Amino acid sequence: MRPTFSNILLKLQEFWKEQGCIIVQPYDIPAGAGTFHPATLLRSLDTKPWSVAYVAPSRRPTDGRYGENPNRLGSYYQFQVLIKPSPDNIQEIYLKSLEVLGLDLKKHDIRFVEDNWESPTLGAWGLGWEVWLDGMEITQFTYFQQVGGVACDPVAIEITYGVERLVTYIQQVESLLEIEWGENTLQEKVNYADVHLESEYQFSKYHFEIADTKMLWELFSSVQNEARRCLDAELPLPAYDLVMMSSHFFNILDARKAISVSQRQEFILKIRELSKKCALLYKEQEGMREERLQNIS
Amino acid sequence: MRPTFSNILLKLQEFWKEQGCIIVQPYDIPAGAGTFHPATLLRSLDTKPWSVAYVAPSRRPTDGRYGENPNRLGSYYQFQVLIKPSPDNIQEIYLKSLEVLGLDLKKHDIRFVEDNWESPTLGAWGLGWEVWLDGMEITQFTYFQQVGGVACDPVAIEITYGVERLVTYIQQVESLLEIEWGENTLQEKVNYADVHLESEYQFSKYHFEIADTKMLWELFSSVQNEARRCLDAELPLPAYDLVMMSSHFFNILDARKAISVSQRQEFILKIRELSKKCALLYKEQEGMREERLQNIS
Repeated sequence: MRPTFSNILLKLQEFWKEQGCIIVQPYDIPAGAGTFHPATLLRSLDTKPWSVAYVAPSRRPTDGRYGENPNRLGSYYQFQVLIKPSPDNIQEIYLKSLEVLGLDLKKHDIRFVEDNWESPTLGAWGLGWEVWLDGMEITQFTYFQQVGGVACDPVAIEITYGVERLVTYIQQVESLLEIEWGENTLQEKVNYADVHLESEYQFSKYHFEIADTKMLWELFSSVQNEARRCLDAELPLPAYDLVMMSSHFFNILDARKAISVSQRQEFILKIRELSKKCALLYKEQEGMREERLQNIS
Repeated sequence: MRPTFSNILLKLQEFWKEQGCIIVQPYDIPAGAGTFHPATLLRSLDTKPWSVAYVAPSRRPTDGRYGENPNRLGSYYQFQVLIKPSPDNIQEIYLKSLEVLGLDLKKHDIRFVEDNWESPTLGAWGLGWEVWLDGMEITQFTYFQQVGGVACDPVAIEITYGVERLVTYIQQVESLLEIEWGENTLQEKVNYADVHLESEYQFSKYHFEIADTKMLWELFSSVQNEARRCLDAELPLPAYDLVMMSSHFFNILDARKAISVSQRQEFILKIRELSKKCALLYKEQEGMREERLQNIS
């Protein structure tokens, strides 16, 4: 297998499917990280087993550099695994996934460096490790303790691969933009720049220079209000979509430097407050969800 | 290979990758169909070759049935292929993809039924065929003639698989909700209902009963205005994201029956007008995009 970007993402999906994960698709609301996907954020709260893997395109407007920095992008990919309850040999399984991608672990220095994780906007934290490959962080391991302020029971293990870093390493290229993505029908190489350079440029320009901050403040308030209406109607899933949207609008405002330090804290609190309400309501409805499932079978 | 939902989507990606498509991820803005993904909608306008395949989660709020109808869902999946220029033997390649999924074509009645395609909101149309498998539509074939009002040169072929239908057929199950999605770490079966029943229920309720129509009208106008600002700043990619969002808000208003027949036409025209401007500006910038690519290599 040529280790193209397409191939590596497919290999990771195949591998985790073989370990007992269902494969789901990226979520269709912009998010800063794979953790935001409801398949992680909400499902980690269920009592029953859940094991899932997916690719997570992520947007971090402040990280955009107009496509001019070989190591920084405003949009990139994570590969996300969530398993609950966590298998005892999860580290071993993870290391096998690196071997499947073609890394000879005997030739590399792999370290698990303690690094507990916290997401202020999601009211989530966990005990965890970064995985370092020859001194470069390639993965975050986290045992979720709390999500949306709700205790995870059983505890779930989340594994988040930084896909581009891993691929630049495997392909031995210097710049993210040089990553070989695949081949077209004429057997010409298609690289990361062919797919993403233009969007890196245009979205950097939009997020840093053009975005209408007044409109974004209003959108933020509107979707947050709508999320509250959904919570009142006992609909945590649509509510959570709207919280994700509010978080995305906040990220653009942040990139646009439209938010003072104290306002920033207020925004984060507003997002966290609603994330927590979504999580709590979702958790409370577990019995109802199970009943609905039993009624159709 | 067990023909689970996870496996069939991976097989389709593997197959089309082998045919010279790059694999990209679903887009992170809600859309009614795979055609809306910029990898199809905008890329089909480039002069240079482009061949891509991806899974396309699609939301059609009006199709929601609270998860109570075994054959209708408000969210579902398409599998999308776009190749430009179109290979001469594309029908043959497509049929091979069905064989790879385990269908014995000698035992089934496969028909290509002429059915030209048009998207009023995207200003797009093409010559095409539906593919019928034993009397059930499973795929749409379209030679794009125009996209966003701009002629496609060269013409691109778009292939859109209706994934759930194909899978119910292959798995021989009656209801979409019974589709076997995969297995968890305890080797218990996970089915479509486990993944989507709750969201079908909650989003149907939100789209039909709860969504704040006044807010949605305002969001529609806001993101359309913002799209115009992006177009003025010569940024068709962020502009097009905002057009996609406006289309999604329109779809919810439509499901909520908040739009009269004449207003409906106006909304569609507004979305089409902006889609066309995005397409035209994208097309005009082809030289600039190429220059940017050459500058980094």
